[in-house]
Amino acid sequence: MGNVMNTNAFASLDPLVRPRSIAIVGASDDATRIGGRPIAYMKSQNFQGTILPVNPKRDTIQGLKAYTDVDALPETPDVGLIAVAGDAVLSSVEALGRKGTKGVIMFTAGYAEMDEDGARRQEELVAVTRKYGMRLLGPNCLGLFNADIGFYPIFSSAFDGGWPLKGRIGIASQSGAYGTHVFSVARNRGLGTPVCVTTGNEADVALGDVLGWMAQAPEVDVILAYAEGIREREKFLAALELARANRKPIVMMKVGRSELGGEAAKSHTASIAGDDAVTDAVLREFGVLRATSTEHALDVAYAATRRVYPVQNTLGVLTVSGGAGVLISDAAEALGFAMPPMPEEAQKVLKGHISFCAPRNPVDCTAQVVNQPALIGTFAESLVVNGGYSSILGFFTQTGGSRMMAPHIRAEMNKVKAQHPDRLWCLSVIAPPEMVREYQDDGFLVFEDPTRAVVALHAMEYFGKAFAARPCSAVALPKVELPDSTPSEAEAKRILAQAGVPAVPEYACAEVHVAVDAAEAMGYPVVLKILSPDILHKSEIGGVLLNVEDAHGVREGFELLLKRAKEHAPNARIEGVLVAKQIKGGTEMAFGIVNDPVFGPVAMVGLGGIFIEVLKDVAFRRCPFSPAEAEEMIRSLKGFALLDGARGRPKADLKALSTALSNLSAFAAAAGPKLASVDINPVFALPDAAYAADAVLEITP
Amino acid sequence: MGNVMNTNAFASLDPLVRPRSIAIVGASDDATRIGGRPIAYMKSQNFQGTILPVNPKRDTIQGLKAYTDVDALPETPDVGLIAVAGDAVLSSVEALGRKGTKGVIMFTAGYAEMDEDGARRQEELVAVTRKYGMRLLGPNCLGLFNADIGFYPIFSSAFDGGWPLKGRIGIASQSGAYGTHVFSVARNRGLGTPVCVTTGNEADVALGDVLGWMAQAPEVDVILAYAEGIREREKFLAALELARANRKPIVMMKVGRSELGGEAAKSHTASIAGDDAVTDAVLREFGVLRATSTEHALDVAYAATRRVYPVQNTLGVLTVSGGAGVLISDAAEALGFAMPPMPEEAQKVLKGHISFCAPRNPVDCTAQVVNQPALIGTFAESLVVNGGYSSILGFFTQTGGSRMMAPHIRAEMNKVKAQHPDRLWCLSVIAPPEMVREYQDDGFLVFEDPTRAVVALHAMEYFGKAFAARPCSAVALPKVELPDSTPSEAEAKRILAQAGVPAVPEYACAEVHVAVDAAEAMGYPVVLKILSPDILHKSEIGGVLLNVEDAHGVREGFELLLKRAKEHAPNARIEGVLVAKQIKGGTEMAFGIVNDPVFGPVAMVGLGGIFIEVLKDVAFRRCPFSPAEAEEMIRSLKGFALLDGARGRPKADLKALSTALSNLSAFAAAAGPKLASVDINPVFALPDAAYAADAVLEITP
Repeated sequence: MGNVMNTNAFASLDPLVRPRSIAIVGASDDATRIGGRPIAYMKSQNFQGTILPVNPKRDTIQGLKAYTDVDALPETPDVGLIAVAGDAVLSSVEALGRKGTKGVIMFTAGYAEMDEDGARRQEELVAVTRKYGMRLLGPNCLGLFNADIGFYPIFSSAFDGGWPLKGRIGIASQSGAYGTHVFSVARNRGLGTPVCVTTGNEADVALGDVLGWMAQAPEVDVILAYAEGIREREKFLAALELARANRKPIVMMKVGRSELGGEAAKSHTASIAGDDAVTDAVLREFGVLRATSTEHALDVAYAATRRVYPVQNTLGVLTVSGGAGVLISDAAEALGFAMPPMPEEAQKVLKGHISFCAPRNPVDCTAQVVNQPALIGTFAESLVVNGGYSSILGFFTQTGGSRMMAPHIRAEMNKVKAQHPDRLWCLSVIAPPEMVREYQDDGFLVFEDPTRAVVALHAMEYFGKAFAARPCSAVALPKVELPDSTPSEAEAKRILAQAGVPAVPEYACAEVHVAVDAAEAMGYPVVLKILSPDILHKSEIGGVLLNVEDAHGVREGFELLLKRAKEHAPNARIEGVLVAKQIKGGTEMAFGIVNDPVFGPVAMVGLGGIFIEVLKDVAFRRCPFSPAEAEEMIRSLKGFALLDGARGRPKADLKALSTALSNLSAFAAAAGPKLASVDINPVFALPDAAYAADAVLEITP
Repeated sequence: MGNVMNTNAFASLDPLVRPRSIAIVGASDDATRIGGRPIAYMKSQNFQGTILPVNPKRDTIQGLKAYTDVDALPETPDVGLIAVAGDAVLSSVEALGRKGTKGVIMFTAGYAEMDEDGARRQEELVAVTRKYGMRLLGPNCLGLFNADIGFYPIFSSAFDGGWPLKGRIGIASQSGAYGTHVFSVARNRGLGTPVCVTTGNEADVALGDVLGWMAQAPEVDVILAYAEGIREREKFLAALELARANRKPIVMMKVGRSELGGEAAKSHTASIAGDDAVTDAVLREFGVLRATSTEHALDVAYAATRRVYPVQNTLGVLTVSGGAGVLISDAAEALGFAMPPMPEEAQKVLKGHISFCAPRNPVDCTAQVVNQPALIGTFAESLVVNGGYSSILGFFTQTGGSRMMAPHIRAEMNKVKAQHPDRLWCLSVIAPPEMVREYQDDGFLVFEDPTRAVVALHAMEYFGKAFAARPCSAVALPKVELPDSTPSEAEAKRILAQAGVPAVPEYACAEVHVAVDAAEAMGYPVVLKILSPDILHKSEIGGVLLNVEDAHGVREGFELLLKRAKEHAPNARIEGVLVAKQIKGGTEMAFGIVNDPVFGPVAMVGLGGIFIEVLKDVAFRRCPFSPAEAEEMIRSLKGFALLDGARGRPKADLKALSTALSNLSAFAAAAGPKLASVDINPVFALPDAAYAADAVLEITP
């Protein structure tokens, strides 16, 4: 996969996140200053290590003994926090390195984010940290916290609203402001976030490092990440793979759409991809859930803390309101969240308890349970035991917040939950915060809005499937020899055919009589296309003739194409005309390769013509991948039914299609950066074969 | 439009919702009982009218003088609340009617929702209320409240969590449990809901009455509605139209999907429609926003209370976090919410204030404003004055909740807001509830989650456009004479052509030599189709032959079609063969009519074949409608680009298409319930015409 690395490498962040001692260079006695606030936080939160203030002007800082410089420190700090600017930065980092310190955290701004001079100074800084084997967080970052050990090398006012709560959600954010924003929202919702790391300029430690550290850290079960742009591939992909292997869900906010693939892009595939589609594909490949909003991200992360990830999730609903039941069913249906009905027998039994209940699923126990609270347990148990649902959602609205009813609901639901801890237990109630906290402490997920509950519960299946997926089978890469410049269509197809992407039978014909012979041999109708390495988009100059029916047509067409080429591209090298069998029937598709600057070659598949151009109905995946994964991509297309016999069509040969697509991915992976892009359009999906009918293979200059 | 009615009719709900006196039949001294709770509520909330308890067994009820029966009441109550069951119900209602009471509210269950006997008793009840000109709310409803006058004829425990807040959102709900649920959520969010009416069985007062009452009631600016199924058309549509005319937004939760159009449906259009697509179309027609969740509904209703509904909404963002700015931009882009950049000049000025700010839009003023709070006002003013945005979203996250910064933010933002009250002012802050309340009291919309803010602000444009839309132009209906049974294809097309839906040139030919002559006259290729009133779906029996190229082909084809018809439909009446010009090029479309049991004829348009079958890319609208509205439907299709010159195609004649579709809608409206359905598939959209190439016109048996 190209992304297997020594995952112990992620432990190199230990000195940054879990140190036994910290030196603060530029320590301040003023708890509001940049060099003072972290000390105040750590004192207040009883940091379980040693705080070593460095300040040449004072003997003590906030009551702690201060040292004049790094060299004067009585011990080697695990990590150094740089809260100075200017020349002092480099000399302090150098001194820390000499001392044997393994981590540096830098708030200081004015580096690569600023200008070229800053970028140069950032490189110097990295050179020093590399020299001493130190990891560097920042510069221009807000810092981090590890609440479990009271470690707060961070410059943020977020704690005015309260300290992090105990819990299992780690926050990894490229943006400091956003990282502490999401921490604050989480805290106000009662969600515990023990660790938050913000990466700033990512001169050394990038998001991938942080994700990887969290993927192997016992402090964290669930990772909530925020990214603006992924800057490196290896650690990022290794981190995603490690998180999946360790069954730790990652929920990611990935914002922004770059201009990659915009006007400047030559390849058609790239212009459809942008980098957002590539990111999407990479995240999906590794089972990372891409959130649509902060609220969505936190809802899913919260549900994930239960660590129940059903591969086949089913939803059983217990409700006191029929209307809410329908609303919940609608939300589940929209997501494709299965809500199978209760077994007939069980429905009869429930009817025996409350004659006017609706026992199908949603199970509407009606407000009658207010009079007979014990029935809550009876009904819930039936949902679990008879319905067998993996997710149980109880909609109790205000009843769940009533001082009279809440204790009954807790007791009854807890009784059943205790017997079945392997389910996702969720309540939709309107209750005061302290009562919500009680439910949560019992182990229930609590959502006021039932639709949000449905979305969050359903996401657990996404993780379940990702965790259960067999690792991608290794794909053998072919030996690829690329020409030094963009080849003609015929040559492109030859190269691809050699790599296992078969082309429509065709002949390159330099002379007209050869073309006639070729056409007669393969049978009419045929397609004629101008053959030139310099004309990439033939149809734009009228360089393709369809439905050529006889020898006369071939002769006329041959001359016409040469004439058009001369008119529209007088300087193009013309090698003759391509005579190809005209494929009848079948479904037009398109394959493509785009070479992403971060993730390398990424393959695209779509249904042809309209579907790509108008509906953007395409799927992407990082290369290489197996035929099984190729088939998954093809099946994910909205128009897949067209390949599967819709409207009386013959079914396409999925195996041939998937194999060709997988072979293309292996070809692209083997070709490396020299291959700029591939556009194969159309690919004919036939009942017994798949053929490339046109191909453009672009070589990086 | 068929839905114009005397809107004063909605004032007939006044005695139910805004009475000066109420009789409680079955009044109870026990404040937890069904006949006691409303009295306790009204006493506690100082009902501004007279409470008249009726109870034969007691002199006083909860300290109020009680009366033995309705006849004994000292005055005519505006409304009577029925809290008794059995025989007493009908006699009490009758007595109230005799007394001159104009409204009855009935909690009592066991009527039409129960069984046939209940339905019969419900009819008796309605007959009595009709006799006396009384409006009846219920039976089997939870009641209503009108907090402004302390009126609480409702049986709910929702007030345990607090009373309704002052505000302008009216709740109209078919479900009592859901209506009080949404009230509770609103109250906990600080949103005022002065009136809530639940309609239960809707024996008389239906959701449309309540929407209409709110549309004309000064108590309400914004209507939040919950519907499971619309039972009647006239009042419902009149209410929607009145709300639009009075610029009162309606946000609706419409849940559930009926089985209409499922297996049993004969028409293809109906099977695509279901009733959900029809509901969707009707709500969109009247500018009602269909919410996807309770949270979404409340977010939009809340934003709507500002009564600022820009027709062209633009979003200007002021943020202290670049990351959040990108996140907000992504959310806006996904919705198509315009975020034009700030003018270059203004950007320069802002750069002058904070050199490292990002002044484009989002305008990132950075955390620097913590040091220079006055710049908040400067930046906000520039957004309004120079950017000219109609919506201003300030993202301040925890800074907005900081005791030190909040007063500055309030002061600065208020200063600018006061000068520009015509904008939508919104803040995304993390702050304690009391501080949020302060911002809200200032008139700011406050959303913790910025994505939800963007969604809610954007919805104001939906209302703005709906309110600005010219009323639908009256469409003249043709005179329509339908046959008594489903006609043949040729007859169907003749009828439609007469109504202004032109068909492909074609001839019905009873004999083979006539067919040959017809084909020779119109020129090859031609299409041959079996002609029979009994064979609706010809292609299923191989009854259509394309690409017939010569006279020989016509002769062979004629015989072949008769043979196939005999084999597959031995009892069908065969009238011969239809010879039609084969249309080359153009885009295949489909028109359809489905007769909705509530809303009557509804037209469908879609791009043909794949687009309908696989992608369900269709638009619906209630009949009749003008060509302009038809064009809107066509333009709303995802595949519209295909008609608009995509991929080098010629542009379709939109005027001809829209006129034909509008004419079809007028035809369907004129035809009335005798017309069960129409399927016109394909319709050929050509550069200079639009032709129906096949039509099935189904008559209601």
